[in-house]
Amino acid sequence: MENPIREDRDQVFEESLEKIFDLLKEKKYFLARDEILKYNAADIAEMLEEISDENGIRMAVILFRLLPKDTSVDVFSYMSTDDQVDIISEITEKETSSIVEELDFDDKIDILEELPANIVNRILEKTPKNERKQINTFLNYPENSAGSLMTPEFVSLKKDWTVVEALEHIRDVGMEAETVYTLYVRDNSYKLIGIVSLSKLVVSSKDTRMGDIMKTDFVYETVTTDQEEVSEDFKKYDLIAIPVVDKEQRLVGIITVDDILDVIEDEATEDIERMAGVIDMNKTDKKYLDISVWKHTLNRLPWLVILMIAYIFTGLLVKSFDAKLEEMIILVTYMPLVMGTSGNTGSQSATLVIRGFSTGDLETDDWYRILWKEVRVGVLVGLILGGFNFLRIYFLDREPWTLALTVSLAMGIIVILSKVVGSMIPVLVRKMKQDPALIANPLMDCISDALALSVYFLLALKLLHL
Amino acid sequence: MENPIREDRDQVFEESLEKIFDLLKEKKYFLARDEILKYNAADIAEMLEEISDENGIRMAVILFRLLPKDTSVDVFSYMSTDDQVDIISEITEKETSSIVEELDFDDKIDILEELPANIVNRILEKTPKNERKQINTFLNYPENSAGSLMTPEFVSLKKDWTVVEALEHIRDVGMEAETVYTLYVRDNSYKLIGIVSLSKLVVSSKDTRMGDIMKTDFVYETVTTDQEEVSEDFKKYDLIAIPVVDKEQRLVGIITVDDILDVIEDEATEDIERMAGVIDMNKTDKKYLDISVWKHTLNRLPWLVILMIAYIFTGLLVKSFDAKLEEMIILVTYMPLVMGTSGNTGSQSATLVIRGFSTGDLETDDWYRILWKEVRVGVLVGLILGGFNFLRIYFLDREPWTLALTVSLAMGIIVILSKVVGSMIPVLVRKMKQDPALIANPLMDCISDALALSVYFLLALKLLHL
Repeated sequence: MENPIREDRDQVFEESLEKIFDLLKEKKYFLARDEILKYNAADIAEMLEEISDENGIRMAVILFRLLPKDTSVDVFSYMSTDDQVDIISEITEKETSSIVEELDFDDKIDILEELPANIVNRILEKTPKNERKQINTFLNYPENSAGSLMTPEFVSLKKDWTVVEALEHIRDVGMEAETVYTLYVRDNSYKLIGIVSLSKLVVSSKDTRMGDIMKTDFVYETVTTDQEEVSEDFKKYDLIAIPVVDKEQRLVGIITVDDILDVIEDEATEDIERMAGVIDMNKTDKKYLDISVWKHTLNRLPWLVILMIAYIFTGLLVKSFDAKLEEMIILVTYMPLVMGTSGNTGSQSATLVIRGFSTGDLETDDWYRILWKEVRVGVLVGLILGGFNFLRIYFLDREPWTLALTVSLAMGIIVILSKVVGSMIPVLVRKMKQDPALIANPLMDCISDALALSVYFLLALKLLHL
Repeated sequence: MENPIREDRDQVFEESLEKIFDLLKEKKYFLARDEILKYNAADIAEMLEEISDENGIRMAVILFRLLPKDTSVDVFSYMSTDDQVDIISEITEKETSSIVEELDFDDKIDILEELPANIVNRILEKTPKNERKQINTFLNYPENSAGSLMTPEFVSLKKDWTVVEALEHIRDVGMEAETVYTLYVRDNSYKLIGIVSLSKLVVSSKDTRMGDIMKTDFVYETVTTDQEEVSEDFKKYDLIAIPVVDKEQRLVGIITVDDILDVIEDEATEDIERMAGVIDMNKTDKKYLDISVWKHTLNRLPWLVILMIAYIFTGLLVKSFDAKLEEMIILVTYMPLVMGTSGNTGSQSATLVIRGFSTGDLETDDWYRILWKEVRVGVLVGLILGGFNFLRIYFLDREPWTLALTVSLAMGIIVILSKVVGSMIPVLVRKMKQDPALIANPLMDCISDALALSVYFLLALKLLHL
């Protein structure tokens, strides 16, 4: 896409970065700082990351320390958790405490979760007792739950407050809150009974009471709800924040939409990787380059080992057919074609169904509709591929028409079978309450290889009178 | 995840839906409407969709028509574009006009883009000239550009207005706006010069002027920016709205974060499908079940046909080795293992790199780091898989050690090669400014099959003295 303004922006950024690299090389740290301070916190965080990649973390820390204190906290909050941990490992404990203290509550929890226990304890020692208790509660929510995503920095209003009282309260506490665009109305026992939007507040007359303008049919989550369900609600209801309540229906936190953007992307990444047979054994959201060789290996081995074992049986299948193959070695020539096609048609169907489940477009109850669709698609694709292959083998390869028929008939049957198996296995896995993305392409490939070879060999036996 | 409150909610929803199905069967339409009106607009939209799936679109339309007018517009705006088009095809032109009139501007554009030209023209005839002009401009922005995502329903303030004047203006026009949480400050020639958040406004003293509290280092897009870049900015800067300007830097619209949730999900879906070799030939975002068998077939055929052609060469490769294979048919037994492993290790690497590009974790400049990582992972994985296979073939299959060595050495080399090729092809494709996800797993499979068989056969020639 052409976009002059945007390209300018990127180019200016790159030029500044080059300039900073040069300044750092010449040890002109203060000039480098002045250059970097032309940007906003999110851009500075990105620049420090590049500097750390290029010149090592120490150089990034030198620059980081030269930033004005307010800016440095902002910049820190925009960094990835990995970079945050790296920075903390290089700065003094006192600096660490003062940065962590200033972070928004949810960022604080994120970084405390990643730090070694001894550092966490020392930071908590200096935290007021009240907040320490709250932090400990938050650290205990299960990973990927609404509790682990939420922040307690919301504004709650009492039911009988007027607009004037509410606005005054917002002026007092609003600066500390993650959002003041949605306000939460509670009764005296801290139960959440309604929500009011700031826009509603601003357009209402001054003496209206919260109880009269609050919305009571609002969407909320409980602390244990899985983050995937939370993100589905955000998508469905077009929200910018969702309140989170505990078992007693008391408001304990809110989740804002900016945190959900990352969840949606992380969930998609997890799906994609799982489908390709990469399992994140350490449950980190680390970037590709930040994952060690050893961990990369561990993430990829499980499926490859399972595959290796599964291929023992495929091997046995081929071996049982050895004598016949020796008699007619030309059959071997078409083995890669037969196996490749079945694997790929199978993964196409599996992928579409798995993604349909993830986005909520499909439900397991739809299985007969999926099956019926795949059967018809399979017949069409099978006819086309089978037909082409008959022509190719008979006219191009100049093999006997019986062989051409064997291969192309096998292809047709295999395409239909693979589409059926490929689409129904994810349905089954989901019925068993497991993540269908875990039925990765490797397994699909192996199952369809075995299926394909069986069909191919059986047809060859029949049609070629072996 | 256990979540009693949430499960209750789902269950209540399902029970209501069953009740409505029953009421519709008995033709008690008004009772069904009363039941459905217990829910909010997003839930009603979902229910109508289920009713349409179960009882056909006519039944859904009957219920839709019985909804109070305000509700029906809200419900309509929560429906998928497909369902919207279905509804419109069933209701009168007058009903259509009155619904489309009430929609938010960006929803209006979405539905107008999908409707047949004659209906669009008739709707536009009844639209005031001013708005008609605006609609026509919006309909002309390229698909997937910032221009096609934005809405003109924002609040813009003049630089010299005070807080009181600004709040008054918001009260006047705010109800029509998509968001009042971010306000846009313009000069007299309509150029965007700053932004002010509603929260800032609310906590500022009454006679402060916009020029003094506005932020001037804000992020903005131009109308032609691709939606993927827009969503990257939302993620990077944690925003709830981004202003969009034209070439003259005039503010023409804003994009809100709720529209970006769908973009992130759609982009991930596109990536996932492309990687599995499914290409959306019609560029629709239709759901799996809504896509016709014929279109499903068209989406899947291109890669399968390319694959079929590519396998001609793999076939030739195998054929050239025919005589040797006949001599030692046992080599065929391990062909599926060799091909399967190489395909899957290759796709693992390709997937991780492609996803890294999509999320912005990787850049093409990182290619040597990626290569070095993959080589080391390849060596480790290759050693482990090769070692296991040697033991298996020698001890379990009781084949001669020379054969065991051939297969396991081939495995080791193939794993390394596949990881290198699998990770570098996406880098090359991206260097050529194409979407690396288009180098789908089918092609990876085919390339690695050919590579694997070459290595395997060559090693066999050498080591087994064939």
